[in-house]
Amino acid sequence: MKKKIKKVNAAILIIGNEILSGRTQDKNVAFISNWLNSKCGITVDEVRIIPDSEKVIVKNILNLSKKFNYVFTTGGIGPTHDDITAKSIAKAFKLKYEYHKEAFSILEKYYGRKKFNDGRKKMAKMPKGAKLIFNPSSAAPGFITKNVLSLPGVPSILNSMIDNCKKYLIKGSKIYSKTINLYTVESNISKQLSLIQRKYKKFVDIGSYPFFRLGKIGVAIVTRSSSNQKLISVNKDLKNLVKSKNIQILKI
Amino acid sequence: MKKKIKKVNAAILIIGNEILSGRTQDKNVAFISNWLNSKCGITVDEVRIIPDSEKVIVKNILNLSKKFNYVFTTGGIGPTHDDITAKSIAKAFKLKYEYHKEAFSILEKYYGRKKFNDGRKKMAKMPKGAKLIFNPSSAAPGFITKNVLSLPGVPSILNSMIDNCKKYLIKGSKIYSKTINLYTVESNISKQLSLIQRKYKKFVDIGSYPFFRLGKIGVAIVTRSSSNQKLISVNKDLKNLVKSKNIQILKI
Repeated sequence: MKKKIKKVNAAILIIGNEILSGRTQDKNVAFISNWLNSKCGITVDEVRIIPDSEKVIVKNILNLSKKFNYVFTTGGIGPTHDDITAKSIAKAFKLKYEYHKEAFSILEKYYGRKKFNDGRKKMAKMPKGAKLIFNPSSAAPGFITKNVLSLPGVPSILNSMIDNCKKYLIKGSKIYSKTINLYTVESNISKQLSLIQRKYKKFVDIGSYPFFRLGKIGVAIVTRSSSNQKLISVNKDLKNLVKSKNIQILKI
Repeated sequence: MKKKIKKVNAAILIIGNEILSGRTQDKNVAFISNWLNSKCGITVDEVRIIPDSEKVIVKNILNLSKKFNYVFTTGGIGPTHDDITAKSIAKAFKLKYEYHKEAFSILEKYYGRKKFNDGRKKMAKMPKGAKLIFNPSSAAPGFITKNVLSLPGVPSILNSMIDNCKKYLIKGSKIYSKTINLYTVESNISKQLSLIQRKYKKFVDIGSYPFFRLGKIGVAIVTRSSSNQKLISVNKDLKNLVKSKNIQILKI
């Protein structure tokens, strides 16, 4: 029996002037994408990095939430003036921007009533009806509004919260992947690779990535598919190509 | 006399399944953005990461090249089947996709006529009328088509080429920036920061970024402006805030 393949996709929206200006190196894209792939069978099909501008956030939330099953936002949910993600998402979906009762009480408990100032209270303000994504490292929760999941920008905090997104996500079919590292140059195999890609057109993605390791030049061939059988089959073809060209495989 | 401020902006379009899947950590955004900022007075206002899909590339090239002064693409200009950036840009602008004479002769010289195979020849195919961005590390040139500059994905090669983009770019006003690192938490200063931001609304961007260093929690306050005077003035206000709150400044 043929297994039906279920494709579920997502976009990531990185909100923050500090990433755009090059001051801060983003690490969240790779982390979220790897997690979605391996834990949920969800592929990331687009990433955007945008400034802390309400107008720009609103436009991108509306656009991406229509195009993809899920949108993950990172950044802009802290206590300062440049943290405008929650407010902008509320605006995008025409929802009230108000205190979330449970978030408020989590934060009040965490800081103690005396130290629970206006900046900290702001972190409990969310689009009406949002559901919480719990934060085991610094209390301030993320939240999901329709199909948009909002997480903080600090990687260590985001990483600690990601598993709490799982219950809100519909899983896709497992994505299988295999990499072989070859001691050759791309142009030596480009013609044959192209023929193999054509053969497996819709079923397998073949990527070719040059690398430099231990002073040697090589190419990593990455195959990805929702069908493990097709993946095994394409890798047989690749091994035949490698053999016919007498190329050395790097084992790592 | 008031100096007129000239704003020039850019978008970066990262083309590559390997970045989207999380297999490879992008490093080009931070590098290009820092370079554009410091060397050309150009700010990056949007970044997109998209798959190796002709349809998606065409759409994004058309959209971004209209919205921004310049678009920088990275990736997809190598010799393999998944390298489709040049072809897609040609399609987007309805230009012929053909051998660029000078690029062809550069590559032929580099590889020698005997080793100049089809894969390598492909790297000389570009949109008609493209101008070259020379590549001192591995010969294969980048190119500029209208306001779109196409660079390779491998960071070391891209980095070696970036200065050769300069002659194609109109410079913007210098962007001044200052960072002060404070041993405090965001919520302790969020209210006052917000007032200061309101005072300098259109002239200075104030960003607030929590950090963890040597086991201590802190906040980096980053101010950016096209006016050095406004930057000096806003930093005086910030120092007064720091003094009034008795906050320690971290000198690094």
